[in-house]
Amino acid sequence: MANQPARDLEVFPNPEQARDYTIRISIPEFTCLCPKTGQPDFATLHLEYIPDRLCVELKALKQYIWWYRDQGAFHEAVTNQMLDDLVAATQPRFMRLLADFNVRGGIYTKVTAEYRAEGWQPSTKVELA
Amino acid sequence: MANQPARDLEVFPNPEQARDYTIRISIPEFTCLCPKTGQPDFATLHLEYIPDRLCVELKALKQYIWWYRDQGAFHEAVTNQMLDDLVAATQPRFMRLLADFNVRGGIYTKVTAEYRAEGWQPSTKVELA
Amino acid sequence: MANQPARDLEVFPNPEQARDYTIRISIPEFTCLCPKTGQPDFATLHLEYIPDRLCVELKALKQYIWWYRDQGAFHEAVTNQMLDDLVAATQPRFMRLLADFNVRGGIYTKVTAEYRAEGWQPSTKVELA
Amino acid sequence: MANQPARDLEVFPNPEQARDYTIRISIPEFTCLCPKTGQPDFATLHLEYIPDRLCVELKALKQYIWWYRDQGAFHEAVTNQMLDDLVAATQPRFMRLLADFNVRGGIYTKVTAEYRAEGWQPSTKVELA
Amino acid sequence: MANQPARDLEVFPNPEQARDYTIRISIPEFTCLCPKTGQPDFATLHLEYIPDRLCVELKALKQYIWWYRDQGAFHEAVTNQMLDDLVAATQPRFMRLLADFNVRGGIYTKVTAEYRAEGWQPSTKVELA
Amino acid sequence: MANQPARDLEVFPNPEQARDYTIRISIPEFTCLCPKTGQPDFATLHLEYIPDRLCVELKALKQYIWWYRDQGAFHEAVTNQMLDDLVAATQPRFMRLLADFNVRGGIYTKVTAEYRAEGWQPSTKVELA
Amino acid sequence: MANQPARDLEVFPNPEQARDYTIRISIPEFTCLCPKTGQPDFATLHLEYIPDRLCVELKALKQYIWWYRDQGAFHEAVTNQMLDDLVAATQPRFMRLLADFNVRGGIYTKVTAEYRAEGWQPSTKVELA
Amino acid sequence: MANQPARDLEVFPNPEQARDYTIRISIPEFTCLCPKTGQPDFATLHLEYIPDRLCVELKALKQYIWWYRDQGAFHEAVTNQMLDDLVAATQPRFMRLLADFNVRGGIYTKVTAEYRAEGWQPSTKVELA
Amino acid sequence: MANQPARDLEVFPNPEQARDYTIRISIPEFTCLCPKTGQPDFATLHLEYIPDRLCVELKALKQYIWWYRDQGAFHEAVTNQMLDDLVAATQPRFMRLLADFNVRGGIYTKVTAEYRAEGWQPSTKVELA
Amino acid sequence: MANQPARDLEVFPNPEQARDYTIRISIPEFTCLCPKTGQPDFATLHLEYIPDRLCVELKALKQYIWWYRDQGAFHEAVTNQMLDDLVAATQPRFMRLLADFNVRGGIYTKVTAEYRAEGWQPSTKVELA
Repeated sequence: MANQPARDLEVFPNPEQARDYTIRISIPEFTCLCPKTGQPDFATLHLEYIPDRLCVELKALKQYIWWYRDQGAFHEAVTNQMLDDLVAATQPRFMRLLADFNVRGGIYTKVTAEYRAEGWQPSTKVELA
Repeated sequence: MANQPARDLEVFPNPEQARDYTIRISIPEFTCLCPKTGQPDFATLHLEYIPDRLCVELKALKQYIWWYRDQGAFHEAVTNQMLDDLVAATQPRFMRLLADFNVRGGIYTKVTAEYRAEGWQPSTKVELA
Repeated sequence: MANQPARDLEVFPNPEQARDYTIRISIPEFTCLCPKTGQPDFATLHLEYIPDRLCVELKALKQYIWWYRDQGAFHEAVTNQMLDDLVAATQPRFMRLLADFNVRGGIYTKVTAEYRAEGWQPSTKVELA
Repeated sequence: MANQPARDLEVFPNPEQARDYTIRISIPEFTCLCPKTGQPDFATLHLEYIPDRLCVELKALKQYIWWYRDQGAFHEAVTNQMLDDLVAATQPRFMRLLADFNVRGGIYTKVTAEYRAEGWQPSTKVELA
Repeated sequence: MANQPARDLEVFPNPEQARDYTIRISIPEFTCLCPKTGQPDFATLHLEYIPDRLCVELKALKQYIWWYRDQGAFHEAVTNQMLDDLVAATQPRFMRLLADFNVRGGIYTKVTAEYRAEGWQPSTKVELA
Repeated sequence: MANQPARDLEVFPNPEQARDYTIRISIPEFTCLCPKTGQPDFATLHLEYIPDRLCVELKALKQYIWWYRDQGAFHEAVTNQMLDDLVAATQPRFMRLLADFNVRGGIYTKVTAEYRAEGWQPSTKVELA
Repeated sequence: MANQPARDLEVFPNPEQARDYTIRISIPEFTCLCPKTGQPDFATLHLEYIPDRLCVELKALKQYIWWYRDQGAFHEAVTNQMLDDLVAATQPRFMRLLADFNVRGGIYTKVTAEYRAEGWQPSTKVELA
Repeated sequence: MANQPARDLEVFPNPEQARDYTIRISIPEFTCLCPKTGQPDFATLHLEYIPDRLCVELKALKQYIWWYRDQGAFHEAVTNQMLDDLVAATQPRFMRLLADFNVRGGIYTKVTAEYRAEGWQPSTKVELA
Repeated sequence: MANQPARDLEVFPNPEQARDYTIRISIPEFTCLCPKTGQPDFATLHLEYIPDRLCVELKALKQYIWWYRDQGAFHEAVTNQMLDDLVAATQPRFMRLLADFNVRGGIYTKVTAEYRAEGWQPSTKVELA
Repeated sequence: MANQPARDLEVFPNPEQARDYTIRISIPEFTCLCPKTGQPDFATLHLEYIPDRLCVELKALKQYIWWYRDQGAFHEAVTNQMLDDLVAATQPRFMRLLADFNVRGGIYTKVTAEYRAEGWQPSTKVELA
């Protein structure tokens, strides 16, 4: 795995497939290009997922994020595309992606999308005394 | 699309129509005129929606907001009119608009309106452990 | 509508009667007189309502608030009276008024009253992902 | 009503008996004496109630609070006694009293007691959008 | 001293004339009328002074503040006039008045004025370790 | 009741047995010894209970807390033992004890235990408008 | 030293007379009576001093504060009187007393007075790197 | 139990097995090695559990945490492994572990996993007035 | 001036050369490449300056910042280079640049450099009463 | 430069030797061993310096910090040793190191040391209006 932008997402076997558990990843350094003006856009990404048989490898995820540096991408499309790519690569039980874009023209935009595997149900959260 | 105020709202095809996902947009720079006194009013707009087949284009949205700069507009009417225009243009599954107006005569006003497409139901929110 | 205190509440047609939406108004500059001592009292008012066919006009509301400047008024009575006047003038679907009075004699008082039109039911609040 | 400590609680007719509404009163200046050591105790009182036919008069309430200045009183007993006196005087639909005592011997104490009139039911709270 | 608005400021002998000491008084309930529109204005006053032979009596100060309730007064003029009246009544060694007015037309105003008796010198402030 | 550490917990009759009410006590000054190393441990205790026929006397509680100063005590055991002692002494309807221990060896520990009398049911909490 | 209000201030020898060091004492439970109305006043006292040959004993200070509970006292006079008493009893190198009184009639008052022994000079505060 | 890193988790009998109670432990000093690069990773661990017959001994827990100092460990695997080890050692009724890792390559990661003993049910939390 | 990355800094005449005044500019979207690894670096820039005869044009400044997107640059060198370029272009009386870089390998770096024109002296700041 | 702990500090030529400028580096991931108990210690390091002819290379600095992972080191000694090593390697005009250690035995320790090159003088800080 060379140290360069790459669209491929590497995965590894989930070390604990018997259990529903949560992985949360925050990435404050997403940047791409506006397809209309060619100017840079910036966002912070918040990903949370319950893996099934595969987990996303973090260094490859970093290179995947890096790959967008020279891509033109609309806010709504790129958020859904990243979620689709991550779902395709890891086939999780549940995954949610929030992209929080920097202000442009006085307008702040956030896009949130999520995926739920067919048949999967969240368990009720336990609140201890 | 020239760079000037314009009442038309441009839209583009929702890149991910198969999925209910949320777009949130904040606009701290709305200004119009008080229809009674002709003096400037200011507000921060908070929009959130689940698109169906169309999304609102951000640069056109900025010009649409700009269009109100020389319009007389009552707080309640303008909030509903903007929601109506945005609903008419995008035909979303769900949309909510909150307009938070600056103080006038010692009085602070907020107006919140929402639209729900017939037959659409919100899914239960998943809270992970 | 002259610029002076006035007990009359002006209204205007709700520009969007088909929809339940919320108007929130905060007024930090309410003052009246204590009916026992004749001394000034001060309060901040918080009003929220869902209009039906009529909305309250803000400049007239300001003059209505101003009208109390020379009136003697008990905390509990004046809060209910203002709610009654606002309900009588606008016939809303729902209205709530909170009056938060300045300390007097080491005692802080808040009074909250609300009105619900017969047959009106609040809709369930939508929480997006 | 002379300006001196007095155990009597004056009341006045609730100006709006048709409606369940809430009166909240905070009193940071309660002081009494410890029955064991004779030393001063201090507390902040928080009262909230829904009146039925009577409201408590604030100046008399202040004198009632003042009356405890020279009384010996245990934390638990005095909180319940004040609630009982206020209930006896005003016969409210609902009343809750929280007494938050200053630290003594490194120990902080709060006592909360409430009264609910037979047959009275709280209405569901309306949360607007 | 009847309980009513009064322009007269009552004073009493400074109980400790041998010492330079500071009296700070905050009054969040100042209200007067705008001389142009006749509408109410509101401000919080902050007074600090070093008395010489006289102190201002607080109940009379309250009535003096109350006196402005029905007076038309410009921000700059009223701040200076109050300082002048307070200086004339108490002849202090030093006095400073800050009037912090509520927003009007989107504009926030504060006016600060001070008086220093001839020959009086402030001592250096001691900051303990 | 001499002023010295004492394991006995004194009680007194609950002055208002007809009513479920809450007593909350915070004690930031608990200290005992680590049974392994003999070194001092420190904790803040938070107790809340609904008394039945008896209340715990505060001065005796202070002496009871004091008694642990020279006792070796494990975090889990001492929290349960204090709850057991307090339950044995007061036979409450409900009691909860949270012990928040200071960091030791880079590890922060909190232990929470509660007791519920057989047959006792909490009432639904009333939230006023 | 009986446990009761007492005007006498007890002192003890300053254990470290060779050094200028600072003692700070805060007393949130000062209460006296208004000499005009007979009603209770409340204040928080903040005392800071550099002792010379004597320090003030804390339990006696508490009884001294307690002594004011039934005394009529003006804000300015009582602050200076307490400073004078404390200076007379302890003859400090420097002493400052700030009395922060609870709001009365919408007016907040703070009085600050200080004493500096003849010939004493504050050392310059050292700001470490 | 020597003072050195050790993979063994020592336990002791739960001193209060009759009762469901909660133990919360925070450990800001977890460090291990990245299995890919060999470089140190750092995390804060948050553990909460309801013991059954056994509790984890804190000093041994510290040594267990210490044991990872020289181990290569992936974020997801090590969180689950620690939970598995703690569950195997203590056989709790409920246990939850959150590992909050320091940023690496601009990416922040948190992993949360939990265990629930078969047949165990959380009790409803009591909220007192 | 085309909308693309450009190393040239455009300037315009300072409209008020008679006065020392301050311009502050914050740029949260600086990104370049690490010259060692080729990976992206991110920083927030804070610029403050007192112009002499020229001011920096903001759109060109944005393009200048954008120009670094594909440049390899060390933290210390790039901060000084940007300051040098800005000084060369605008010849200010005073200029300071702070570059706050995102964490890399667990290390946070900030570089601050400033320029002062020969003979220029900062004025003493006036503290108003 | 292999990716492993190393005591050597790599340097590179200061790109801007003509100017006094400041480099600030924060390292929250310092860990070493206690020389008495062999147990891990943790600290956050804050370094600030004005380079002369050399700057410290960040990746080598990270490896230098990493080198302490298996070293026994007293708080005071290790802080001074790191400052000495950094001064020896870079020969700066000014350097200050603050080590903020995690709590041990209920005690929090910070050590600050600095170096100033002979003949070097700090310039007065410019505070802009």
